Amino acid sequence: MAKRKLNVALIGYDFMGRAHSNAWRQVAHFFKDVPFEPVLKVVVGRTEAKVAEARERLGFEQHATNWREVLARKDIDIIDICTPGDSHAEIAIAAAEAGKTILCEKPLANNLSDAEKMLAAVKKAGVIHMLCHNYRRCPAVALAKQIIDEGQIGDIHHYRGVYLQDWIVDPNFPRVWRLEKARAGSGSLGDILSHTMDLSRYLVGEPIAVSGLLKTFISERPLPDDPAKRGKVDVDDSAQALVKFANGAVGYYEGTRFAPGRKNYNRLEINGSKGSLVWDLERMNELDVYIESGPLSGFRTISVTDGKHPFMAAWWPPGHIIGYEHSFTHTVYDLLRAVAAGQQPRPNFEDGLQNQRVLDAIERSSITGQWQTISERQIG
Amino acid sequence: MAKRKLNVALIGYDFMGRAHSNAWRQVAHFFKDVPFEPVLKVVVGRTEAKVAEARERLGFEQHATNWREVLARKDIDIIDICTPGDSHAEIAIAAAEAGKTILCEKPLANNLSDAEKMLAAVKKAGVIHMLCHNYRRCPAVALAKQIIDEGQIGDIHHYRGVYLQDWIVDPNFPRVWRLEKARAGSGSLGDILSHTMDLSRYLVGEPIAVSGLLKTFISERPLPDDPAKRGKVDVDDSAQALVKFANGAVGYYEGTRFAPGRKNYNRLEINGSKGSLVWDLERMNELDVYIESGPLSGFRTISVTDGKHPFMAAWWPPGHIIGYEHSFTHTVYDLLRAVAAGQQPRPNFEDGLQNQRVLDAIERSSITGQWQTISERQIG
Amino acid sequence: MAKRKLNVALIGYDFMGRAHSNAWRQVAHFFKDVPFEPVLKVVVGRTEAKVAEARERLGFEQHATNWREVLARKDIDIIDICTPGDSHAEIAIAAAEAGKTILCEKPLANNLSDAEKMLAAVKKAGVIHMLCHNYRRCPAVALAKQIIDEGQIGDIHHYRGVYLQDWIVDPNFPRVWRLEKARAGSGSLGDILSHTMDLSRYLVGEPIAVSGLLKTFISERPLPDDPAKRGKVDVDDSAQALVKFANGAVGYYEGTRFAPGRKNYNRLEINGSKGSLVWDLERMNELDVYIESGPLSGFRTISVTDGKHPFMAAWWPPGHIIGYEHSFTHTVYDLLRAVAAGQQPRPNFEDGLQNQRVLDAIERSSITGQWQTISERQIG
Amino acid sequence: MAKRKLNVALIGYDFMGRAHSNAWRQVAHFFKDVPFEPVLKVVVGRTEAKVAEARERLGFEQHATNWREVLARKDIDIIDICTPGDSHAEIAIAAAEAGKTILCEKPLANNLSDAEKMLAAVKKAGVIHMLCHNYRRCPAVALAKQIIDEGQIGDIHHYRGVYLQDWIVDPNFPRVWRLEKARAGSGSLGDILSHTMDLSRYLVGEPIAVSGLLKTFISERPLPDDPAKRGKVDVDDSAQALVKFANGAVGYYEGTRFAPGRKNYNRLEINGSKGSLVWDLERMNELDVYIESGPLSGFRTISVTDGKHPFMAAWWPPGHIIGYEHSFTHTVYDLLRAVAAGQQPRPNFEDGLQNQRVLDAIERSSITGQWQTISERQIG
Repeated sequence: MAKRKLNVALIGYDFMGRAHSNAWRQVAHFFKDVPFEPVLKVVVGRTEAKVAEARERLGFEQHATNWREVLARKDIDIIDICTPGDSHAEIAIAAAEAGKTILCEKPLANNLSDAEKMLAAVKKAGVIHMLCHNYRRCPAVALAKQIIDEGQIGDIHHYRGVYLQDWIVDPNFPRVWRLEKARAGSGSLGDILSHTMDLSRYLVGEPIAVSGLLKTFISERPLPDDPAKRGKVDVDDSAQALVKFANGAVGYYEGTRFAPGRKNYNRLEINGSKGSLVWDLERMNELDVYIESGPLSGFRTISVTDGKHPFMAAWWPPGHIIGYEHSFTHTVYDLLRAVAAGQQPRPNFEDGLQNQRVLDAIERSSITGQWQTISERQIG
Repeated sequence: MAKRKLNVALIGYDFMGRAHSNAWRQVAHFFKDVPFEPVLKVVVGRTEAKVAEARERLGFEQHATNWREVLARKDIDIIDICTPGDSHAEIAIAAAEAGKTILCEKPLANNLSDAEKMLAAVKKAGVIHMLCHNYRRCPAVALAKQIIDEGQIGDIHHYRGVYLQDWIVDPNFPRVWRLEKARAGSGSLGDILSHTMDLSRYLVGEPIAVSGLLKTFISERPLPDDPAKRGKVDVDDSAQALVKFANGAVGYYEGTRFAPGRKNYNRLEINGSKGSLVWDLERMNELDVYIESGPLSGFRTISVTDGKHPFMAAWWPPGHIIGYEHSFTHTVYDLLRAVAAGQQPRPNFEDGLQNQRVLDAIERSSITGQWQTISERQIG
Repeated sequence: MAKRKLNVALIGYDFMGRAHSNAWRQVAHFFKDVPFEPVLKVVVGRTEAKVAEARERLGFEQHATNWREVLARKDIDIIDICTPGDSHAEIAIAAAEAGKTILCEKPLANNLSDAEKMLAAVKKAGVIHMLCHNYRRCPAVALAKQIIDEGQIGDIHHYRGVYLQDWIVDPNFPRVWRLEKARAGSGSLGDILSHTMDLSRYLVGEPIAVSGLLKTFISERPLPDDPAKRGKVDVDDSAQALVKFANGAVGYYEGTRFAPGRKNYNRLEINGSKGSLVWDLERMNELDVYIESGPLSGFRTISVTDGKHPFMAAWWPPGHIIGYEHSFTHTVYDLLRAVAAGQQPRPNFEDGLQNQRVLDAIERSSITGQWQTISERQIG
Repeated sequence: MAKRKLNVALIGYDFMGRAHSNAWRQVAHFFKDVPFEPVLKVVVGRTEAKVAEARERLGFEQHATNWREVLARKDIDIIDICTPGDSHAEIAIAAAEAGKTILCEKPLANNLSDAEKMLAAVKKAGVIHMLCHNYRRCPAVALAKQIIDEGQIGDIHHYRGVYLQDWIVDPNFPRVWRLEKARAGSGSLGDILSHTMDLSRYLVGEPIAVSGLLKTFISERPLPDDPAKRGKVDVDDSAQALVKFANGAVGYYEGTRFAPGRKNYNRLEINGSKGSLVWDLERMNELDVYIESGPLSGFRTISVTDGKHPFMAAWWPPGHIIGYEHSFTHTVYDLLRAVAAGQQPRPNFEDGLQNQRVLDAIERSSITGQWQTISERQIG
């Protein structure tokens, strides 16, 4: 029996657009119980020639240059927003008003005010909304969540999350848009510390106070289009925070693009009263687990590739690893199931707003030199 | 400008069929310079209902139950053989006679005689033929090949290759077809030691003599369809060999399914006169390299995920790993380029035959208790 | 030619006393160029029977119960202080007044005021004084120092140091003296974060401001001598700090005894503009180094066991590792060389005082919720 | 109460002599229950000046140049033989005839005939005899033995032992005595493969048949004393063997000095029916253990540094590692306990003889190209 088709419109076709479109293409080939057949209907971008090429390469049926016209189409079910953060609010609010299911790449917005408006819009419209923090759906992270929820490592005392990269350590690396506050909102803070922080909210609980430290090591860089000239870097190169959680745990967040050799080192360590967990995105198929059990205790490296592990029954036999992009496939799989169930998936725009509150507090703390508190969120 | 389409017929749709069909679906979405557009035209299997379901799930346009009829079709360009080894010869020879490009999953055949006939058939027909030993196209393995070819580790003295799994260590695991000599040809020898050995031929050179040891730990197991009854296991549970290479290097091969905790541990270590290389499929995106360079020498772990590394420009930014199935995507990418260039890809049926000679020698050595020599191969 | 003998008096014979006495016993057997022959003359403790037993076990010639009488002896050259921190000041000041060379186990004192008095006393007396922060003399740490000083990793941007243990995570672990502020001064802060911080001063430079967070997870525990009763824990279970260094680097310190599975995980990571360094005490013979060098870059694991590496010519051939206690042997080796040269070794009491200033600032910051600045130290 | 003193005479003071003398010096300082107080009475060597220097450096009371005179002394209790293998037989037989307790560094002898005579001599004399294969007493190896004996990994199917070094990979490395058959007996075979093999006998059981392969990569090298001239290398650079054990397990041994980056890589992996063990001398304080236990199974890394682990109560708190030389301290500790108990320690000269039989069989197999059987040993 053929499944009902859902038509997807993708806005933006760069790095994230490639990852999302792969997820839409692949999900039904591997997850037998996916409740709909997603159709890659239309990809949207500003430049006709480029978006036409993206259509062909990414496997969409159509391309378009005006996202508002696409939102107006009756045949479009899902809007997938993969543009830079400064345009998320405008698109998402319009998509909500058009009654579409929305998948929005993180960060939800570049500032708190926009994030609040976006949440209000989707609530008012009553649409399904999801924030794409794909790392929650790496199987090893989902397994960590299970282990914690089952109480296997006891009450959590410590969270230690760092996201280290090295791509701008060269002072001659150009002043790209990600280094402009007006476009990117922030630097490492919103781009990568945000992942570390989102994972802490998923695995540990709500942060209630932070002491932050943002640092810009290189304040001017060559302009991308005119390397003879230099432009100002007005975002953070590195971001750090001490954290107090509602449940009494304490933590540390860090994001930096100045760690040579760390390509995509999104690493977390959690210490509970009975055990510990360690995960690193560069070895994303592994979870290191310590559970106190006498003289033979030790950190064990679990190859999270077994059919018994989260999401893995869809893929290959044990020991056959999956890649980065599969985390997006798992995200759209869960979104489609949420649509079928008529329930909001997690993380959604409420998470996006709460995430923005935490990032905002870290930034304010870095300016004031004072701890900042974060109001505890309610999800209805 | 649209690329010319090549129509693919896939014979077999199980584990390997899933991996191959994914490769055909994905290759053009990631490799911009792929010279053809492959079309998943028809999937072939014995059981109508099952193959119909496979068609939908794997994304083929059509399905069929008679492979001979499919071979007779003019519109089919490529035959991709993913059936068990005992049917490879019949299908491949017929495909060659039909003038098709052939991709054949390893092992080429279950015995030496079949392998010889297959090579003769493709040579007579003058078709493009490729053997799918996908691990040659893991980026880290391809990088190892570059490093060796550039002389960076000098002359090779040692090859140490083991392929360890654990899926039949439980004596109550059933006597599946892979444990029957009539179906599978051999056990760990042909299934996994064959990979270790093929990688040695790729990276080190030709083995010229072997001393082999095959062992069956559990000689009877419950029958899959009637667990109250037991059937004989007449293949090897583990296979080992000492190896002499033509270039003076010495080596060791092992394959076993009796190594608890080793899920897919296809590991090799190569020691040359100037350095060493280590690779492990369970961390397939990493290559460990030692090059002697004074007091700061050490094994370095290269994250083989950079656009400068083999195949990786097609995928994600540095540090974003790829999965097992991507090695098949790289295989069909290279096959399509070989078709465009009118050249035989490697490994091809000549390699398949030579591989079979080595496996055959290991088996004979295990029986006779004597070293067996392997004639050096010529590839014209 | 026999070397001149120096007579050592050891005050305290517990864990640290065992480690120091081993160093005095061993140093001349391995370091041929040690300029004196140290003699284990007298061990001092409060309880006659216990100290008599310690004399025999640790290999001292004599034992004593009154340290003031020992300080008054003309034949004693070196006073080695291994008592708990609350008695360091009294003993060290008296030793200085008696004109002895002093080796004092860290922390220099339990508070800033005592540390200042101690430094004043040794300066006034003009004696040689050394603080025992033994980890500076793990060969891998000394190699890290060389690499940094040679500029091989460029300007330093990040220091990340954690010292994790797990020995009090059980709430029923007793309220030992280390958990009493009056005896121990602080908890993880002075005991283990202090090592992390001292290593940052050695390898990176002076911290000038900190934001601290101390946390006590378990506020009452069974009393050691009467487990039916409970006593208050008034020190920190975990301590954390954000750090700004004088040279523009930013950092993070953490010490905790609540990390299951981390037995003695004193780990640091340093990121510079050209490379990175990682070290972990649990694998103390290894240093991980990344130096950017093109497509074959990767973290390399150096086995710091070669005669070319710091201190290692005294020990075994490459690959034969040394143990924890050897770091103390290296410390007394360097102390004896400093005595011969008539120069103050490092770290010395000036370092001890500066260390205390940093710990003090972290504690104050944790109370006030404000960043605290640390005056830059001068060493004359 | 003072313990009875046992006087030790050490024959040979090079690398092994240094390691043994350290053990004799240290054992009573750490093991409270050692039943005797060993006295470093006399060190013996051929060259007066050198042995006098060794006496001072190693801490012996006396030195001597004539070992026969030392053997004749009534006050000597233990003869510790640390000379090259070609003199073991003569010294050990004389020591037995003199009624001394004997500790003999491995290999027991350079050939089978000598080993047989040595065993006959100690049996006839009724003395305590021990072979020093120190790696049996690395705590992690002793823990592995416990785990196996308790049945925790079930019946053993596989042993994989390699001992890799790299110190002669440079063709200009001189033709030292270890590369002369007349002095050393063999190359990697007796020097390092012998450790791998001895550990298999300790942990798995008796090997009963081997297929061996010895290889010499560099057949001539500069003479140490006259580098302009070249001398023949007549020992193996690398040695390999396939192994059948009496209990049905199969195995692999390898020793080589041609593995760049492997400094002292004595690694073993054992696969049983319920689990696996991995150990590597370069990280000698760790044991990796896999025990099948459902979805959270994984190789766990045990820090074998806890007081509950073998030998470790004598040393430091958990996580504080010990070094290479401690394995010798554990060896003499067990020897002294065996003397007190009047029982033969293991390994002893019977093990030495059996070890020699296995090495002999590997060498013969390499020459004949045929499997060689080894008679099963009896220990009475």
